[in-house]
Amino acid sequence: MELKNYIRDIVDFPQKWIVFKDITPLLSSPEAFSFVIEDMAKNLVDIDVIVGLDARGFIFASALSYALEKPLVLIRKTSKLPYETITEKYSLEYWEASFDIHTDSIKAWQKVAIVDDVLATWGTMWAAIKLVERLGGKVDSLNFLMELSFLDGKKNISSYSINSLIQY
Amino acid sequence: MELKNYIRDIVDFPQKWIVFKDITPLLSSPEAFSFVIEDMAKNLVDIDVIVGLDARGFIFASALSYALEKPLVLIRKTSKLPYETITEKYSLEYWEASFDIHTDSIKAWQKVAIVDDVLATWGTMWAAIKLVERLGGKVDSLNFLMELSFLDGKKNISSYSINSLIQY
Repeated sequence: MELKNYIRDIVDFPQKWIVFKDITPLLSSPEAFSFVIEDMAKNLVDIDVIVGLDARGFIFASALSYALEKPLVLIRKTSKLPYETITEKYSLEYWEASFDIHTDSIKAWQKVAIVDDVLATWGTMWAAIKLVERLGGKVDSLNFLMELSFLDGKKNISSYSINSLIQY
Repeated sequence: MELKNYIRDIVDFPQKWIVFKDITPLLSSPEAFSFVIEDMAKNLVDIDVIVGLDARGFIFASALSYALEKPLVLIRKTSKLPYETITEKYSLEYWEASFDIHTDSIKAWQKVAIVDDVLATWGTMWAAIKLVERLGGKVDSLNFLMELSFLDGKKNISSYSINSLIQY
């Protein structure tokens, strides 16, 4: 299946000179979405926990959790998770932000797959890795629908196993 | 299955005097999450499109879309969706906000199921209904994991079919 046919380029979003990769056509196609989930699932058979990143990561992590019958854990923007949390900051190109995870969400030595829609800059992914590792989890793989290779995210997290279905 | 065993009360979140219903224990249990998705799915067999609300609604809408092989459409907080959108404002108890939907996401006369985690106040749900109806969609049902009946959300949207698995 040519998944790029289901990704739409949006010029100047969220700001001038950025070409945003819109995944909503893919989500509107049950055939394409099933293909993606089943392909991503192949790499996650042996893991213990699936971690999804706020908010588009939830879309893939949730369907994977259901398909594989694995626990789903949320990493959310700070102040969204209600129970006891730990926090990691990250810098994006244009602003600073931070992620939280519940302290009881991952047990020591669990094998964890982190899931998001796009690997662009390494900042958010690196914060997610640190949160999992601070809880004692073992990051087994980083899993994306799409990888924007030209942004050079990969080299910063190259000691981890990275899976993506679409590369630009 | 006693689903309330998988919902955790968090006192004084997000602010003093609020008791927040934390769904993360349920997401961490593959048995409970599968039960929820399969139970919600029973009501959605005849619909054309599943609409998930930003951000926790995505968790349920996405797994339902995968399980039922139905198109998944996102309603997001304003300025998150990249393509052409329409907007509806809503008031929460403490602030104002708005939702967007892509104009090409729903076709006239499609039967639409709206999915979110919690029905609390009617504001967000009403904005979602208006977005779907402005695109010509027919709202078939409103689907929640949980309904906080004491907040009296239901009476404001009582002309719609409402499904929820847990009532408080």
